[in-house]
Amino acid sequence: MKNFILPIEKLVASFSRLPGVGRKTAVRYAYYIINSKEADVRAFAQSMVEAKETVHYCRICGNFTDKDVCDVCKRGDKSVVCVVAEPKDILALEKVSDYVGTFHVLHGLLNPLDNVTPKDIRIKELLERISVDGVHEVIMATNPTVEGEATAIYIGNLLKPLGVKVTRIAQGVSLGTDIEFVDEVTLTRALEDRREI
Amino acid sequence: MKNFILPIEKLVASFSRLPGVGRKTAVRYAYYIINSKEADVRAFAQSMVEAKETVHYCRICGNFTDKDVCDVCKRGDKSVVCVVAEPKDILALEKVSDYVGTFHVLHGLLNPLDNVTPKDIRIKELLERISVDGVHEVIMATNPTVEGEATAIYIGNLLKPLGVKVTRIAQGVSLGTDIEFVDEVTLTRALEDRREI
Repeated sequence: MKNFILPIEKLVASFSRLPGVGRKTAVRYAYYIINSKEADVRAFAQSMVEAKETVHYCRICGNFTDKDVCDVCKRGDKSVVCVVAEPKDILALEKVSDYVGTFHVLHGLLNPLDNVTPKDIRIKELLERISVDGVHEVIMATNPTVEGEATAIYIGNLLKPLGVKVTRIAQGVSLGTDIEFVDEVTLTRALEDRREI
Repeated sequence: MKNFILPIEKLVASFSRLPGVGRKTAVRYAYYIINSKEADVRAFAQSMVEAKETVHYCRICGNFTDKDVCDVCKRGDKSVVCVVAEPKDILALEKVSDYVGTFHVLHGLLNPLDNVTPKDIRIKELLERISVDGVHEVIMATNPTVEGEATAIYIGNLLKPLGVKVTRIAQGVSLGTDIEFVDEVTLTRALEDRREI
């Protein structure tokens, strides 16, 4: 395969490292950059370095922040903690306007096959918060996958002896889906967890 | 819609400007950057600025190069010129190993609706090359779209009085496709079957 000149090849290689970006998409992005104004390209590069330099984890919950403690921890109800796997999950849950509690980011899920054990994710930090902040409910909002379920059950078992109420977000059919195409496990859950209307 | 903290929001905005990238994809890219090593992020930003700084148009053909004259112009047969709309088309055509001529990038196609007239694309430069380099054949390899066809015919009519053989790549390339993405076999056929216009 013929290659581009070195500076373009380097840029294509950089873009190729982004998740889900193959060579053709990377080339498209690279051409866009080369055809952009120099000031815009510098601003783009600057935004990248700046985000990397200023963004770190919140000391309390592990969410992304550019301060010591993130805004959610500052304003949220510390007695209710919603546990998620990654910071991006927080944004989705924050949109649910009636949730006023705080969050806790595990930065991963238990996964023995990938050697992710309880000490590799932020479980110790969660246990510390339980006693310090007087948490009375922990909502496990990890993905409904094998790893997410296992992590929810593991943490649930750790917390229950401490007298904390541990709940799991409900599983069922999501809004707008076709029951015809919903998988059996989800339908079984949806039937089990049915509620009176 | 809830927003991220400012540095992340800025980075998401930067990525959103890339072609075909919506907010969700931009967020995914931004998270990737924040989770990357600082050295890698700096290298990425550097590759962007460097490509923008060093890459410019070849003085002769208008292809992207980091030198004064691009490699294709240096080694190619100057008497045969293949005319394309954009630099990215050159890489696709270069893969056709039996083409030994040079290229000429128009940087656009005639498009009256978008106010792209003959003086907006590199037609004058092409005419200069005809006399200076003793060009005996010009192959029009613009996209087989309305604009590409119109540009090919326009340039053909300009060049024929000068005694230059003007050919058009055969309609082996299917109507409406992008030369950038056509497979090599089709491109080879299209070059072989070029016809006089």
